Amino acid sequence: MRDRAQELFRDTQDRICAAVARVEGGPFQEDHWDRPGGGGGRSRVIQGGAVFEKAGVNWSAVHGELSDQAAAAMRAQHPAAEQERRFFATGISLVIHPHNPFAPTVHANYRYFELGDGSRPGSWWFGGGADLTPAYLFEEDARQFHRVHKAALDRHGAEHYPRFKRWCDDYFFLRHRGERRGVGGIFFDNLALETAEASVALVSDCAGAFLDAWLPIIERRRSAPYTSEHKRWQALRRGRYVEFNLVWDRGTHFGLRTDARVESVLMSLPLTARWEYDQHPEPGSPEARVLEVLREPVDWIPFDGD
Amino acid sequence: MRDRAQELFRDTQDRICAAVARVEGGPFQEDHWDRPGGGGGRSRVIQGGAVFEKAGVNWSAVHGELSDQAAAAMRAQHPAAEQERRFFATGISLVIHPHNPFAPTVHANYRYFELGDGSRPGSWWFGGGADLTPAYLFEEDARQFHRVHKAALDRHGAEHYPRFKRWCDDYFFLRHRGERRGVGGIFFDNLALETAEASVALVSDCAGAFLDAWLPIIERRRSAPYTSEHKRWQALRRGRYVEFNLVWDRGTHFGLRTDARVESVLMSLPLTARWEYDQHPEPGSPEARVLEVLREPVDWIPFDGD
Repeated sequence: MRDRAQELFRDTQDRICAAVARVEGGPFQEDHWDRPGGGGGRSRVIQGGAVFEKAGVNWSAVHGELSDQAAAAMRAQHPAAEQERRFFATGISLVIHPHNPFAPTVHANYRYFELGDGSRPGSWWFGGGADLTPAYLFEEDARQFHRVHKAALDRHGAEHYPRFKRWCDDYFFLRHRGERRGVGGIFFDNLALETAEASVALVSDCAGAFLDAWLPIIERRRSAPYTSEHKRWQALRRGRYVEFNLVWDRGTHFGLRTDARVESVLMSLPLTARWEYDQHPEPGSPEARVLEVLREPVDWIPFDGD
Repeated sequence: MRDRAQELFRDTQDRICAAVARVEGGPFQEDHWDRPGGGGGRSRVIQGGAVFEKAGVNWSAVHGELSDQAAAAMRAQHPAAEQERRFFATGISLVIHPHNPFAPTVHANYRYFELGDGSRPGSWWFGGGADLTPAYLFEEDARQFHRVHKAALDRHGAEHYPRFKRWCDDYFFLRHRGERRGVGGIFFDNLALETAEASVALVSDCAGAFLDAWLPIIERRRSAPYTSEHKRWQALRRGRYVEFNLVWDRGTHFGLRTDARVESVLMSLPLTARWEYDQHPEPGSPEARVLEVLREPVDWIPFDGD
């Protein structure tokens, strides 16, 4: 499963980067790096591009021994971490911040984790998801992003999308603001279906859905006319993105307190962000409208019959 | 002591705001706010000013009952929190971000905390400090800031400055970057000298030293000519300021997880900040020079004889 997962995520990185570079009309900068404790990764970045203010797509496959702190954090969900400190982890993580304030920021992350050789019950699992963070709300975009991810999940059972949709709303929550980060998507962790086969098939379909979900949105919004006031609001919303990632995101928190590569952990931060004291949009404005759906998450695909 | 401390900090806010407004050539916006659990504060802000990109000076005096979480966090240092949940806290906190990239950001905070009526041993203490965060290093500024604060502390014993200087370097540390936030200053917590009198006198002298330490620096740097490249570096350093405050600062961390007023907690964030992937200044450049002193803190006032 190790080889299978790391190839799946590496191919996903290649496929997504090729599509992003086509939209940008230019290549990514690529860094190969080694992790001192074992393994390494490929970080790919576009910065100050024509379409993308900043786009980072990171792949890694690392292994080693869990620190005491990491093992303690893991134990509640994964009792196997009690006896086994050797781990293997591979994943892809991306955050794309377009220039155009009407084009949303998008994030996706899929990963596989294994303790020991993954043979004990509970010693391997997948996690991941994808979510959309618009500065301005286009319901069409939110619905499409959810619909494509729901279709990918539905192939593996109707129970997944409603659960992973709610999980996403709950996870990407700025508690101190009472706001979600964006219009959501899907999120899951500790996923181990009956077989590794079934699990990797679900994750593969989700990761494969990303471009279908996102490409039409960036194509629709990339060239929309905008003013400096729209850019100002976008920069304020990027401030909130920074707040979520630095204050609440467990992956970032963990990465900054361990020996993870800082530049890869913080690749997710926007090129620019802004904080104004006690800023509130005009009631009834498009800026206020997006806040409404961040405060009260919407079921973008109303569930039939429940 | 409650009345004494809250008046000291309120007067300090008035005095500092008057001086900042004189430099700015314009007034602060002021908000009075009430804390639902008891007490309130005065937040004062300049934003997008002529001299200051953002300046926030906050005073508060609040009281109530410690939450379980707050009491647990306090117990290690203050066993009195075991039996006593009623608290009173008052303080002043300021962060000033000038426009000019050669003018440093400055922060100061002084506070008094009391459990119950403050009559048990260990049931009251002071904390605080002041520190300077330049984007470009001027040794003259760093030495002056330290020298004025040292003189204020030396009136209360020669042991304080060396200890509080090191404490400042240790506290304002971005562990994930291996960098201090700035060139330091002084920092102390849990301060209770033999008498409340002696303690408040020390804190009063430190708070009173702020303008002497900082005004000459802003006057020297506010009108220096600069380029967009200097502004870019300043924005990158402001990104680091955000990283410290959101990832490592205990006050911010605590404020965002309790019922503190979010806008007052996050007043410290700069108006604008920037993150570039894997950015490194040219070796030997002024940008590289400031990083050197952030990585290896300097004794700005070499200690005589030790």
